[in-house]
This record gives sequence, C-alpha cells and structure tokens, in this order.
Amino acid sequence: MPTIDFWYEFASTYSYPTAMRIENMAADGGIDVRWRPFLLGPIFKAFGWNDSPFNIFAAKGRYMWRDLERLCEADGLPLKLPPVRFPQNGLKAARLALVGEAEGWIQAFTRAVFTANYAEQKDISEDPVLRAILVEIGLDADRAMETAGRPAVKEALRAQTDEAAVRGIFGAPSFTVEGELFWGNDRLEAALAWAKTG
Amino acid sequence: MPTIDFWYEFASTYSYPTAMRIENMAADGGIDVRWRPFLLGPIFKAFGWNDSPFNIFAAKGRYMWRDLERLCEADGLPLKLPPVRFPQNGLKAARLALVGEAEGWIQAFTRAVFTANYAEQKDISEDPVLRAILVEIGLDADRAMETAGRPAVKEALRAQTDEAAVRGIFGAPSFTVEGELFWGNDRLEAALAWAKTG
Repeated sequence: MPTIDFWYEFASTYSYPTAMRIENMAADGGIDVRWRPFLLGPIFKAFGWNDSPFNIFAAKGRYMWRDLERLCEADGLPLKLPPVRFPQNGLKAARLALVGEAEGWIQAFTRAVFTANYAEQKDISEDPVLRAILVEIGLDADRAMETAGRPAVKEALRAQTDEAAVRGIFGAPSFTVEGELFWGNDRLEAALAWAKTG
Repeated sequence: MPTIDFWYEFASTYSYPTAMRIENMAADGGIDVRWRPFLLGPIFKAFGWNDSPFNIFAAKGRYMWRDLERLCEADGLPLKLPPVRFPQNGLKAARLALVGEAEGWIQAFTRAVFTANYAEQKDISEDPVLRAILVEIGLDADRAMETAGRPAVKEALRAQTDEAAVRGIFGAPSFTVEGELFWGNDRLEAALAWAKTG
C-alpha cells in the first residue's frame, strides 16, 4: 500500500485543516498515512527565528489568519480566533501523540488537540486540557501522561524533529513520499497523487 | 465585469506559472485581469531581508526549486534551471511593463520576460534581452525603452510598489479582489472564485 508521511506541529495553523481532512482523502486513494508530529522551534532557530514567522513578519501573519478563515470556511471546519496564544507550546501534545502512534490513537488525539486549539480557544500546553482530551477519546489519562513523560518518548520526539530537518522540512504541514517533499496544506492533493503514482 | 488585480515581480519564480495561465483561466470565468508589476525589494527590506528569502533560508530555497519543477511539469511549461542569476533585477522590465499597460501589450511582454528568465536562461536586466523581446512582440524597441526611462514611469512603479505594501502584499504572485488578498500561484483558483461570486 502506498504510504505518505504527514509531518505536523501542534502550534501550526495550517496543520489544522490538514489533520482534519488527510485521513479521508488518503483512504479514498488507497494510501496509508504515517502521522509524524515534530517540533518547528529548533528548525526555526536555525533560521534565526525565535518566534513564529507569522509573528515576526506582521504582514504575513495578518494574511495567514485571513487565509485560514477562508480555508476553514471552505472545508466546513469550526474556527475560533484568536487562539489563547500563538504559537502555542505543543511539546507535551507531541510527546503524547508519539505514545498514541505506538498505541493506535494518534489520529483521534491529534484531531482533538487541533480542535481544542483552533476551534475551542483552549491552551494545549496545559495538563488538564490534554487530560480531558485523552479521556474524551477513551483513554486512561494518568497512564498516557506518565508514558509521555518517559525519557524514551522525549528522545523519540527529538529524533523525529532531527529527521524532519534532515529531510529538508522547514514548515508544517509537510508531506514526504520517500525522498519527495511537499510543503503546505495546499500541497496535500499533490502529495497524495505522488504517493499513488510515483 | 468582475476584476482581479494580479500583482507580480519579474524576479519571482512562482509568478512565472501564474503569468502563463491567468489570462485563459480568468477569461473562462468572465473575469478581467489587471496586470500590476511591482518590486518586492522594498517590501523585503522592511522584513530585514536584503536578498530573496529563498536564498537567505536555504531549505526553503531547495524546496522551492523542486516545487517549481513539479508545477511547471504539471502545467506543461518549459523550465530551464538554474536562471542566470536569482533573483534577477526586474526593475527595467517592470518599468517597460507599465508602458505596456498603458499601450495594451503588458500581457504579451510579461509572458515573454518570464519565459526569457525561466525557460531560456537569459538575463532580463540586460537591454539587448529586453529589446529583443519588444521586437519579438512587434514593438518599436527604441521608443518603448525611451518611454520606460521617463520620470513619470519610474514614479508610477514606485507608486504601484507603495500600493502593494499598503494592501498588505508581502510576496508574489498576489491577487487582490477589492480588499481581499490572496498570495501565491496556488491561490489563483480561490482568487478567481472570489472575484466571480464575492
């Protein structure tokens, strides 16, 4: 079965519409999706950025929020702006997602975190918010939180972020199909087509 | 008739596929296109950039060239990389384009300049290259070059660039439909749809 790697960061705005649509679109094309959370912070630091480029470059930021509104409206996705903070700290959520990858609940968890951030104005760095999401998707929150705090999970997230950088990833969402890189929610269709025929 | 403003910079890579497809797509939708060359340099300077972001941020640049290859292949557009220089100095070409706007040959001229840059590895800052393009599209090159050097044309390009900044434009190609801004070749479809129904 053809496979696509979906690289996302929980703070990333454009990763939200992708997370909400990729699974159905991939299934329609008979394509398997590997969900790969990573951190943009270290990659942006290498560019000399200590904040989101949407904050550093105001005109880009203003445009992005409006563009996101239009995209979510077109996709029928709820959106409630502004988020409690931008960018949010997605570190704990990303570690939890890696636990979810091993245990088969990464998709539901990821979608719920993006929804909490962009449709419900919740702070996804806070333990009670993450715990409520875990419970909502039917998990033992204590156990998941404990597992996510283990050194092996922290190391796995670092390794995933390193791999993203090595693959030339510089933003989110990104998609890789073997060595081929696609960047942006608006390249999802092209990436899926590449996976299918490439 | 609904109208869309197409903002482009001759050095911009993604403006090339847009320039080659916008007229037919707009005509299919019964939409009028206003071609608006401007300069990105002053806008990038305000971001603290003295070069193209594709040169400053190497990972973004590597991705862009590959993405452009895929896009041109999908559109059946010739592409010959690398260009003689990137970014090229599009100042003279932009002034000529403004003359062409007043005289009705801006579309043909713009497409020929992008083709010279991205499909023929020519230096579009050089007078002989620009003169050959003017002759190719049936113009008196001496007269067009002389007109493009007039203070009023220089001032018109400055004013157009100032207007782009005021409209929140930070990259090329961009599209405006009254107050609504769209950025990127991949937003052309959305911008045309907005012009039609908005």
